[in-house]
Amino acid sequence: MKIIILKEKLKEGISIVERISTKSLNLPILNNILIKTEKNFLNLISTDLEIGINWWSLAKIEEEGEITIPSKVFSSFINFLPNKPINLTLKNLNLKIDCENYHTSIIGASSEEFPIIPKVGKTEKISIQNKIFYQGLSQVVDIASSSMIKPEISGIYFLFQKNLITITATDSFRLGEKKIYLDPVNNINISKDYSFILPQRTAKEIINIFNEREGEMIIYFSPNQVLFENLFLETPHPEIQLVSRLIDGEYPSYQEIIPQKNETQITFNVNEFINQIKSAAIFSGKTNEIKLEIDPLKNKLILFSQDQNIGEYESSLNAKITGSPCKISFNYRFLLDGLLSIALSQGKNSEATLDLINSDKPGVLRPVDDNSYLYLIMPIKNN
Amino acid sequence: MKIIILKEKLKEGISIVERISTKSLNLPILNNILIKTEKNFLNLISTDLEIGINWWSLAKIEEEGEITIPSKVFSSFINFLPNKPINLTLKNLNLKIDCENYHTSIIGASSEEFPIIPKVGKTEKISIQNKIFYQGLSQVVDIASSSMIKPEISGIYFLFQKNLITITATDSFRLGEKKIYLDPVNNINISKDYSFILPQRTAKEIINIFNEREGEMIIYFSPNQVLFENLFLETPHPEIQLVSRLIDGEYPSYQEIIPQKNETQITFNVNEFINQIKSAAIFSGKTNEIKLEIDPLKNKLILFSQDQNIGEYESSLNAKITGSPCKISFNYRFLLDGLLSIALSQGKNSEATLDLINSDKPGVLRPVDDNSYLYLIMPIKNN
Repeated sequence: MKIIILKEKLKEGISIVERISTKSLNLPILNNILIKTEKNFLNLISTDLEIGINWWSLAKIEEEGEITIPSKVFSSFINFLPNKPINLTLKNLNLKIDCENYHTSIIGASSEEFPIIPKVGKTEKISIQNKIFYQGLSQVVDIASSSMIKPEISGIYFLFQKNLITITATDSFRLGEKKIYLDPVNNINISKDYSFILPQRTAKEIINIFNEREGEMIIYFSPNQVLFENLFLETPHPEIQLVSRLIDGEYPSYQEIIPQKNETQITFNVNEFINQIKSAAIFSGKTNEIKLEIDPLKNKLILFSQDQNIGEYESSLNAKITGSPCKISFNYRFLLDGLLSIALSQGKNSEATLDLINSDKPGVLRPVDDNSYLYLIMPIKNN
Repeated sequence: MKIIILKEKLKEGISIVERISTKSLNLPILNNILIKTEKNFLNLISTDLEIGINWWSLAKIEEEGEITIPSKVFSSFINFLPNKPINLTLKNLNLKIDCENYHTSIIGASSEEFPIIPKVGKTEKISIQNKIFYQGLSQVVDIASSSMIKPEISGIYFLFQKNLITITATDSFRLGEKKIYLDPVNNINISKDYSFILPQRTAKEIINIFNEREGEMIIYFSPNQVLFENLFLETPHPEIQLVSRLIDGEYPSYQEIIPQKNETQITFNVNEFINQIKSAAIFSGKTNEIKLEIDPLKNKLILFSQDQNIGEYESSLNAKITGSPCKISFNYRFLLDGLLSIALSQGKNSEATLDLINSDKPGVLRPVDDNSYLYLIMPIKNN
């Protein structure tokens, strides 16, 4: 193997694949990156057996070959090199790296020991703008349950219906739902509805890897795997492919718990509410409970919290209120997460609404300027 | 007690005193800040029994009084308030805080339980520009030994001789020494030499607290304590006072180990050497050893490192070399710390020299443009 590639390009590829080359004690080969030539491309591959990532870049391939190299050593060393062409040469199982006045030899392992990344059939697929996909996913990804007692809600639920993707996550205390409409021109071949539950870790890796990338994301469906791919703009060769296993099981039919009406609606500035919740949180004690008192006559939402060891808190938020007066308690963390997710997509100074029925029924947050997102929160019941 | 003070001012004061109000389980009162009025000043006080900090600010004092309040709750809450006047009112042992639409009551504890900060006599003192003092201290503070086996080298040694301060730290593997010359006009009253060993933690707090502050620092000497004080520019009242206990014992007479000559001198760019050491470090194994080979004929310094499980490293640094050829090994961490400390004070693109005698004798780093600082490193001896 003999490859010449620019430092910045190689560094970019390593940064994409190294994230999932884990510190695995049982299977040390998983700590390695597989480096191989493929025609005039350099191909880097990593896997943790749940997720597999491929990255390709055009490079000067003077001699073909393949080897696996510990990702941490490879990555740390490449980072220090000057932004010049790097020569990668295989000598037995050592990878020689030469770049200006730096000369190194890293001990590798045979590519035969490296697990095979499963192939996903390329018949059924959808295409979506990268940016729209990761922004939508970011709004729900953190809501999924961290407990494995109900594995189906530990993942993110994707439902594809014609030109609509619905992305949902819940931990049974709150639920976030994001709808994304697809460009019908690029998606004329979808023969039926698809759905799958994606592990939360995969969703987080997708956000990290495809974040800030322009272009199109292609999603390929298969019964037990899903493949996310983004394409070079110039060539038909993909730049990154991410294959992930899916979570078995049926996602709860959550639609019935989303209230279809409200008795009280509060419209407020997201940033101001976030600030008051954060300060009320200091006095919310172990239960994380903050009380809201909504008075339509005063157009004010009053926040209370109390901890017998610390003290008492009260503040008032200017708000536009329609409907009946209402008192309700929430876990401040869940309320805050929903508002932060709205602030993330709409900006901190945007407005949002909170719809309530009574103190026992879930509340629903929605951005004023975006009806594609909702965040539902269960109240704390005080009986 | 009834005080009115601007949020930003109060926040600044809390941020200075809260750093040392520790999570002390044995003496919970140490987690509190003492708040008291002193004529037309608000005074905040904290201590961990080793260090005591006083902070003063002019405020509108409508009623005198004092109380202690848990620092974490107080600090977190004040941070969220709008930048408006804050009303602090004492009601029994509760501190009421009112600021616009925020109303809070924090449970406090009587000031009688709070430890007394020791007083330091104000006769013997020196005066130095704040900025010069903390910059000099920053260059040696991290070198002190973290082990308590020899308590005297766990601290920073200060020697005051007429108009010269020498600040030294060592952990027996390396030693840093900084000399600061005082303005004689402001320091005519020093009757004799003084020296003390300051705990490393106090030194770090001084850097954190006085960092970025303009004006003069006054240091008052007493046998078991030292007082650092900075003054309001407008009034004779100090803004901050920090009292610290000192470390008992005699500092080692280190002057004799500093080589008075060299056989080889290498002059190099600090940033380039740092970069090569960091990349050589990846291959330096458990011993952290990197080898330097100095060849005056080629004007090159060659770096080698090797780890039998990872691989081999070699790079070359362009340098101006005078004297004899030399081979020597160092622990890369110690070499790096010295270079980073020079980069901190002189800028990354500055030049420095490394003076060597032979492979068994300590090396000495010095910035080319600043003869007030030296950093000595013991070599790794390979026999």
